[in-house]
Amino acid sequence: MLYTEMDTTALEDIKKELELEYEKVRGLNLKLNMSRGKPAPDQVAVSFPVLDELTSNSDIKSEDGTDCSNYGVVDGIPEAKKLMADMMGVSADNTIVCGNSSLNLMYDQVSRGFTHGYLGSEPWCKLDRVKFLCPVPGYDRHFLVTQHFGVEMINIPITSEGPDMDMVEELVANDPYIKGMWVVPRFSNPTGITYSDDTLKRLAALKPAAKDFRIFYDNAYCVHSLYGEENDTQLIDIFSEAAKYGNEDMIFEFSSTSKITFPGAGISAIAASDANIKEIKKTLTVQTIGHDKLNQLRHVRFFKDIGGIKIHMKKHADFIRPKFEKVLSILERELGTLGVGEWTNPRGGYFISFDSKQHCADKIYELCKDAGVTLTGAGATYPYGKDPENKNLRIAPTFPTIDELEKATELFALAVKLASVRAILGETA
Amino acid sequence: MLYTEMDTTALEDIKKELELEYEKVRGLNLKLNMSRGKPAPDQVAVSFPVLDELTSNSDIKSEDGTDCSNYGVVDGIPEAKKLMADMMGVSADNTIVCGNSSLNLMYDQVSRGFTHGYLGSEPWCKLDRVKFLCPVPGYDRHFLVTQHFGVEMINIPITSEGPDMDMVEELVANDPYIKGMWVVPRFSNPTGITYSDDTLKRLAALKPAAKDFRIFYDNAYCVHSLYGEENDTQLIDIFSEAAKYGNEDMIFEFSSTSKITFPGAGISAIAASDANIKEIKKTLTVQTIGHDKLNQLRHVRFFKDIGGIKIHMKKHADFIRPKFEKVLSILERELGTLGVGEWTNPRGGYFISFDSKQHCADKIYELCKDAGVTLTGAGATYPYGKDPENKNLRIAPTFPTIDELEKATELFALAVKLASVRAILGETA
Repeated sequence: MLYTEMDTTALEDIKKELELEYEKVRGLNLKLNMSRGKPAPDQVAVSFPVLDELTSNSDIKSEDGTDCSNYGVVDGIPEAKKLMADMMGVSADNTIVCGNSSLNLMYDQVSRGFTHGYLGSEPWCKLDRVKFLCPVPGYDRHFLVTQHFGVEMINIPITSEGPDMDMVEELVANDPYIKGMWVVPRFSNPTGITYSDDTLKRLAALKPAAKDFRIFYDNAYCVHSLYGEENDTQLIDIFSEAAKYGNEDMIFEFSSTSKITFPGAGISAIAASDANIKEIKKTLTVQTIGHDKLNQLRHVRFFKDIGGIKIHMKKHADFIRPKFEKVLSILERELGTLGVGEWTNPRGGYFISFDSKQHCADKIYELCKDAGVTLTGAGATYPYGKDPENKNLRIAPTFPTIDELEKATELFALAVKLASVRAILGETA
Repeated sequence: MLYTEMDTTALEDIKKELELEYEKVRGLNLKLNMSRGKPAPDQVAVSFPVLDELTSNSDIKSEDGTDCSNYGVVDGIPEAKKLMADMMGVSADNTIVCGNSSLNLMYDQVSRGFTHGYLGSEPWCKLDRVKFLCPVPGYDRHFLVTQHFGVEMINIPITSEGPDMDMVEELVANDPYIKGMWVVPRFSNPTGITYSDDTLKRLAALKPAAKDFRIFYDNAYCVHSLYGEENDTQLIDIFSEAAKYGNEDMIFEFSSTSKITFPGAGISAIAASDANIKEIKKTLTVQTIGHDKLNQLRHVRFFKDIGGIKIHMKKHADFIRPKFEKVLSILERELGTLGVGEWTNPRGGYFISFDSKQHCADKIYELCKDAGVTLTGAGATYPYGKDPENKNLRIAPTFPTIDELEKATELFALAVKLASVRAILGETA
């Protein structure tokens, strides 16, 4: 029965029961963490053989004869470009393979917007203001980058199809200060939703008032299906689609192997139009002599080709899928009939997004924290850490063990119930 | 006998001989390269065992228990901080260990000056102009970074003691637009000279008109002695020296293992004051989740400590020293008595700096190139690629074999002689 349809007496009884139960769990002194979007150690271990690919006896030449143990090659060795391009579904010529962090690539691209501008446009640092569209809930580290540069961030609500495209089209077409938009097109962080073809087509066809408007297309989870790539629809090719409208310069795509091999010790890549790639290469030549080619070589030797990546991703999915299913089954069992929350059922990625009743997220977070379960902070999924409805929470099921996850999710559900009852009863914490 | 003391007839005869000899060498169709400041493949191979330090069976935890195969730790694992700090002669608390490229760290620090400023100062992008002092001849990639950001670069002549400090003090004290200075304090690129204690003390005691003036102290060759560290004087501690004058925030120090392990696949570090380190960490937290800790761990496991680095550097020196000596002996033998050039006799680093007679450097470069020997371009050692006297050339002896080096240096000496005779005779090429 829905909490909202119960009378006060029934709710007061439920509250007392929940509070007793909560105190009991608190007594267990749990110390669990569902905040971190990182793979568990046993899952990362499936990638350890990558480390055996290069030893002191290995051939350290790339396929074009480049000595990967010495200086040079600012855009990545050819076989790494091919591998990362195939993974992103783009051309190797339009791909630059870089270091260990795609977040760093995004930071650099935003920074270049400020210091130099793109393709001859005025550097953003010369403007009074710069705005970015931020689909919400979204990835806190994206928002931190734009916040760091003083960008005004505009919330765009996200549905199961992607961001509200009516709003995006309207804003972008009329405001020349809107210079960018964050996008995670597949298994989005934290909702897990994948942008529909229609959404992607409308993104590709945008008519921005700002010539230097750019979509920061973070394809972090491009091969991160929980149920096998063959069972999931693939993204349409955003670059070909954009080219139909002369918009190919409008997109910077990013990806990495952080959640394929080693978080923080993989390889990353940026894909873009011919003109953008030419400009980025020119800047990169000033910025560095080249990225770590030995790590690029190590990765390609391990995977061989995109087929190797897909096989490897099934191993990861086998670790993660039961964890997602565990969390989702507990949420359904505990909260399915109460009307106090909604959550996503992702088919991939690293997160589940949970929306409580209004103004409850921070209370749920605190209840969990006081009982020893750390969640990602309430508000973190919104620019400036401010969730206007105070209802979104990001659940990260991958790092804990299944046992820990069970305990943590049960506490989470209890906290949701308790915070919701209190809210319905008009209590303020 | 000095060319300049010969009469025209004698010079014409010499010229004819040199031209015949030059045509003969041209006929050999050499294809040699003395332009690249990179170690030779057999030299790099001494570091290949670094690759064996981490395999799929290795413990991948750092000494404080951090899992180096997963996300986290923005400032580097503790043992890597200690190693790099000891190498630079600074405190580990004032050191951040980063990715594969110290050039990238310098680029980022300059970029931060433009986008955010340092310690509350106005971002440089808001100013009409920004100037940097550039000791010349210097490192082309330093100059390219500041050129990329539109910085006005001011040449500061360098002597065997370091840059002309009278000029530096005068300029820095009176021009608030001078925001930075490039410095390679030890075995400088390309002169190979090491700054004297007096020069370093005067640098540390500068009284800049600009509060946000910074010395970009690129200690790239801090352990790169050709004759053993025990036989070379060490740099005084620039940070303690600067602290005497309240100038500790004025210095950003950089280094890397690019010329210790793998060029482009080593680890890098930045050292700075408490206040600067705090600010850099804050920015880094926005920029990346962390650098490649597996590569940091691999490096520390290999070297153990600074003692391990010093032993390793002797192996490198054994490859490089004979190459330097070969070049220097040919220059001495061929040009020692002619008065047509001066060159440095470095005790470390990667380069020899050669000054021809005025207006001859580009001609020497062309003569070498036409006969199959590539040098670093004339002018490259000056900001904007413009050597006002057109006399400096950078010789990079490390990459070719001794045999190749012998041929290349003999051609170089021949080219110097020919260009000089032609210049004395008043010919323009």
